[in-house]
Amino acid sequence: MVLSDDELAQITALISNSGDDAVASGADVHWLLYCGVLVFLMQAGFAMLCAGSIRAKNAQNILLKNLMDACVGALWFWATGYAFAYGSDSSSSNWFIGGNKYFFLANGYEGANGFHDWFFQFAFAATAATIVSGAVAERCSMGAYAGYSAVLTGFVYPVVVHWIWSSDGFLTAFTPEGKTPWLKVGVVDFAGCGVVHMVGGAAAGIGAAILGPRIGRFGPNGRPINGHSMPLVVLGTFLLWVGWYGFNPGSTLCIVGCDAVAAKVAVTTTLAAAAGGLTNLFLHYQLSHVYDVAEMCNGVLAGLVSITSACAVVEPWAAVVIGLIGAFVYTGGSLLLVKLEIDDAVNAAPVHYFAGAWGLLAPALFARPYNMRAAYGNADRAGLFYTGDGSMLACQVVALLVVTAWVAATMTPFFYVMKVLGIFRVPQAVEELGLDDLKHGGSAYEGLADKLAAKA
Amino acid sequence: MVLSDDELAQITALISNSGDDAVASGADVHWLLYCGVLVFLMQAGFAMLCAGSIRAKNAQNILLKNLMDACVGALWFWATGYAFAYGSDSSSSNWFIGGNKYFFLANGYEGANGFHDWFFQFAFAATAATIVSGAVAERCSMGAYAGYSAVLTGFVYPVVVHWIWSSDGFLTAFTPEGKTPWLKVGVVDFAGCGVVHMVGGAAAGIGAAILGPRIGRFGPNGRPINGHSMPLVVLGTFLLWVGWYGFNPGSTLCIVGCDAVAAKVAVTTTLAAAAGGLTNLFLHYQLSHVYDVAEMCNGVLAGLVSITSACAVVEPWAAVVIGLIGAFVYTGGSLLLVKLEIDDAVNAAPVHYFAGAWGLLAPALFARPYNMRAAYGNADRAGLFYTGDGSMLACQVVALLVVTAWVAATMTPFFYVMKVLGIFRVPQAVEELGLDDLKHGGSAYEGLADKLAAKA
Amino acid sequence: MVLSDDELAQITALISNSGDDAVASGADVHWLLYCGVLVFLMQAGFAMLCAGSIRAKNAQNILLKNLMDACVGALWFWATGYAFAYGSDSSSSNWFIGGNKYFFLANGYEGANGFHDWFFQFAFAATAATIVSGAVAERCSMGAYAGYSAVLTGFVYPVVVHWIWSSDGFLTAFTPEGKTPWLKVGVVDFAGCGVVHMVGGAAAGIGAAILGPRIGRFGPNGRPINGHSMPLVVLGTFLLWVGWYGFNPGSTLCIVGCDAVAAKVAVTTTLAAAAGGLTNLFLHYQLSHVYDVAEMCNGVLAGLVSITSACAVVEPWAAVVIGLIGAFVYTGGSLLLVKLEIDDAVNAAPVHYFAGAWGLLAPALFARPYNMRAAYGNADRAGLFYTGDGSMLACQVVALLVVTAWVAATMTPFFYVMKVLGIFRVPQAVEELGLDDLKHGGSAYEGLADKLAAKA
Repeated sequence: MVLSDDELAQITALISNSGDDAVASGADVHWLLYCGVLVFLMQAGFAMLCAGSIRAKNAQNILLKNLMDACVGALWFWATGYAFAYGSDSSSSNWFIGGNKYFFLANGYEGANGFHDWFFQFAFAATAATIVSGAVAERCSMGAYAGYSAVLTGFVYPVVVHWIWSSDGFLTAFTPEGKTPWLKVGVVDFAGCGVVHMVGGAAAGIGAAILGPRIGRFGPNGRPINGHSMPLVVLGTFLLWVGWYGFNPGSTLCIVGCDAVAAKVAVTTTLAAAAGGLTNLFLHYQLSHVYDVAEMCNGVLAGLVSITSACAVVEPWAAVVIGLIGAFVYTGGSLLLVKLEIDDAVNAAPVHYFAGAWGLLAPALFARPYNMRAAYGNADRAGLFYTGDGSMLACQVVALLVVTAWVAATMTPFFYVMKVLGIFRVPQAVEELGLDDLKHGGSAYEGLADKLAAKA
Repeated sequence: MVLSDDELAQITALISNSGDDAVASGADVHWLLYCGVLVFLMQAGFAMLCAGSIRAKNAQNILLKNLMDACVGALWFWATGYAFAYGSDSSSSNWFIGGNKYFFLANGYEGANGFHDWFFQFAFAATAATIVSGAVAERCSMGAYAGYSAVLTGFVYPVVVHWIWSSDGFLTAFTPEGKTPWLKVGVVDFAGCGVVHMVGGAAAGIGAAILGPRIGRFGPNGRPINGHSMPLVVLGTFLLWVGWYGFNPGSTLCIVGCDAVAAKVAVTTTLAAAAGGLTNLFLHYQLSHVYDVAEMCNGVLAGLVSITSACAVVEPWAAVVIGLIGAFVYTGGSLLLVKLEIDDAVNAAPVHYFAGAWGLLAPALFARPYNMRAAYGNADRAGLFYTGDGSMLACQVVALLVVTAWVAATMTPFFYVMKVLGIFRVPQAVEELGLDDLKHGGSAYEGLADKLAAKA
Repeated sequence: MVLSDDELAQITALISNSGDDAVASGADVHWLLYCGVLVFLMQAGFAMLCAGSIRAKNAQNILLKNLMDACVGALWFWATGYAFAYGSDSSSSNWFIGGNKYFFLANGYEGANGFHDWFFQFAFAATAATIVSGAVAERCSMGAYAGYSAVLTGFVYPVVVHWIWSSDGFLTAFTPEGKTPWLKVGVVDFAGCGVVHMVGGAAAGIGAAILGPRIGRFGPNGRPINGHSMPLVVLGTFLLWVGWYGFNPGSTLCIVGCDAVAAKVAVTTTLAAAAGGLTNLFLHYQLSHVYDVAEMCNGVLAGLVSITSACAVVEPWAAVVIGLIGAFVYTGGSLLLVKLEIDDAVNAAPVHYFAGAWGLLAPALFARPYNMRAAYGNADRAGLFYTGDGSMLACQVVALLVVTAWVAATMTPFFYVMKVLGIFRVPQAVEELGLDDLKHGGSAYEGLADKLAAKA
């Protein structure tokens, strides 16, 4: 004796009302809040890394900039950023930008994606913004930096999010039912090599180039400028590594039904970081005959950036390879900037733009069919090494070019206008004495100097 | 053909035995353990913030006090604190204090609220205790501080918890079925502006007042005393901000069925922090013509404290307004203490007591009816701006007064007796030389001084 | 009217297909990823603790070693470590070592334990490895340290894991159905006093002994060598404490159905840390008449290590006792090393080996029958104080001896060979000047010295 269809429907309703959905919803929201917190912890990581990487006389200045972009980023991503990224109705969507709803999280936000989604996305926006702080350190004015933060988190970054991660964007891999992504795949940028790191890294490089190098960095008597605290650099690096365990696995946006993907992402992220760090350590040992701690840190970060697109779709061995190559690409980018006399004080552009660009291409080579199905539900496309098909590569290359062009087209005039207006850079005398004494009321280590002087 | 009532009952039993409850329980416990860990991370934040904010010669001393209140807090909250807060049977409850069970987590604790609840509540108690360390820094004796920690976590703080958060307290919003909270609402103090921050902040202010200012702070030649490490201050601030994502969202005490509230709380918390930080930066720029990093940090913290009561019941825009006003209230409190020549070395009372008092009033103004239902199940009351009804304001004002009076009535005699006994403050010679050399075996930077001296 | 068996089967199938399993799986994976991240955060904690505990002239060196063991550990635990620990098929298992599958996470890894298990286990392996860095600080060569990391994470540590935590190991408490663990209990080492801390701590002690003391530490003019930054030591300690909330509660390996055990573990972990910290503070005050911050930190860590085996099976009061005794055992171990003139620069062996050995014995005394059932499903055995039965004590003592013997038998020749080859220790001139200037391109505080010199 079997149950009738009516009975089955009744039972199914009973089951679905039994609290199961509430548990699943709770689990997913917890997951996203947790991952968002880890990503937010990266703010502390960037602040420590940047502060330790520059001279003590400008430490207060960079710390303030890191606090500021977290705060400015929160307010602008609330005001306009989230709306431009995800605020489109199905009726009035366009391929370029959102903006039909969600400004100030008002107008019927409740019941939509949910506040946890804003929180997670905000943490990403703040990460994109803070990448720039180190590149322009020790000479950029505070007002210019605040303006930059607002423009990036409120407009430039959200537009790229819309293109690649919203269902309406022209490059998206997440098309609504009935539509097919471009070349049957769209851009596979799982946690944002292109969306986050290339955007922040390109802005960093452009900003540093237009701002000009620090006094004494290049030219006849130019020499590298050392940071003042390696413990802060390493602390920052470890906090960033920890934060990446929210950044990458959290980009599943769910844990129920996504747990296998999230777990794999944690593994590939770990292995790429390790491979990047060790590779860069040995690479720079060949270059300088020194075991360079800062370079090992940047190698870890280059490895982490490199795997950020591919983390969900590649095998562990491929993660090692991607991280290893990431260290070479980072080092190449770093040498290129020196050759061009672009003074990126913490190598932000090599880590985030150059390794990010490599990372954006990596899925096109290494994405395994099994994982493309698991992570993207895509049974048609996979990486060149598995399929011999170049569709993914085409998509990824186009994304690389379009993201670069967009950031260049928006940030170049922005920085250039500030330069022309004379508000981008502090006066030479301020730069030479240090920004802290003249703009921030004294040294970051006021009491320490007294103490150690008394001791010595 | 439909199922009979008997059949339905059978099926319902099957469903509820199917592991659903275990999953929900697991999810909720995980949520509370996770949030508790974030709150505990605030101990690291306070330690770094306080150490960086004072002179290098007393750094070991303040670090030890921060370690000590975590440890003393754990043992006393285990011994008596949790019992006084939540240890009441329905049969023998009273409005003032618990204490029928839970001492030492013994006597049938298992199967009750659960150990995860103790862990989460302990982290709050330790937070309340550690607020004081910075205020009395650089001159309070170690023994007095250990005694204070025990009294606060073992008795003073738990009593306030009982009043406002247990179901028996006279101010509670969480009455048992059949009872109505005071004025149909009780005190809406979601994560503890009154319970945690005002208690810690009031104790900080009273302690600093009775202890007297540091030598050289006030008087004819008095001047502000700078901290010795701004990187530690900023690191501490970011760790506290991160910890607040456990403090506020975790105060749902559950995630299954509470996820929408928890997610909203993460958003309001973020926006208030950002608004507080930026407001205080610009406010102090007006006052001192300096971009003051420490003040931006305190602004962030004032914003975080300000939203701690209202976080679950207000809209994002209101969170921005609340954080903004919080920075003004903090700054007013800070100026008031200077005028009164009360030397609060890290501005703990302005951040936690003054901004906490404002935060306790905020729900009375901004609480939205929709959110009062969602977070408190209260369809009767909401904020003055929505309803024109002052019931909530009455409750919150009474809580403000009662909490202040309670802390004053208990901690004033406690600190005063220690002062009279001559055990509250270190001798003048110790204070002048620094506590580290005389009490802690040397400088916090022993090796660093040697290294830098060799270098210079 | 009741349902037929056929109908019941149909309904049960409906229920189990209703997403419940997916939710439970998601919750469990989230739990393990979260706990793994906390354990990984301990890398930052060790790095800060070790850097702060040694002289400024070798800070870069120790920071690099901490980065390196995280990276080397990841690659070797991927290559061989996980396979040796857990890679056994039921058909071809052996009691000593795994290795039938899982090398490089290849060959059908998917669908097995899951990637989240590798991530969690990797974080433990990296913890075991990094324990050594502080003990051999300020004189061990970089190459030797890299080699050590590989051997420990790739072979020595995984073998112990196999013995005690895999279902095939000869000491396991987790036998497959139908088999009985040794003495009906096997080794109760919940989160790894023996598996992790004794392995790392024994390697630390052996390494320090074979390497020999730092110049100036012992001998006629020998004196204790102070660390250079107590804020880093305390930050490291708090980060480790936070990380332990992943280390111990996460060792449930699940949260659904394990939540009560995990919650209890968080409580016992807290109380043991607090008791250890306060006990050691007062103990060393008796010894030195100084409130020694570093000793309070090591007391907290000794308390945490002490409870790591017993955390799931004892009452809160017992956790306090275990932590308290742990501080005495740590201090005894520390004094013993000084007597033997073994120079363990951060007291890693006393914290991890000595307190770990005590912790491994603790369940044999304090394990409560109720908790043995809840955490181990073992209704036959419990602690000596509850049952008067010494079976558990026998198991734990054997584990203590076997683990010690294994680490001694493998690491002693390894370190000794490196010593004989002259590659274990840096030349005397390098040690005297400091490793940073000669091996790492300069001081960890290059810019700070300039700044403070300019100031003074």
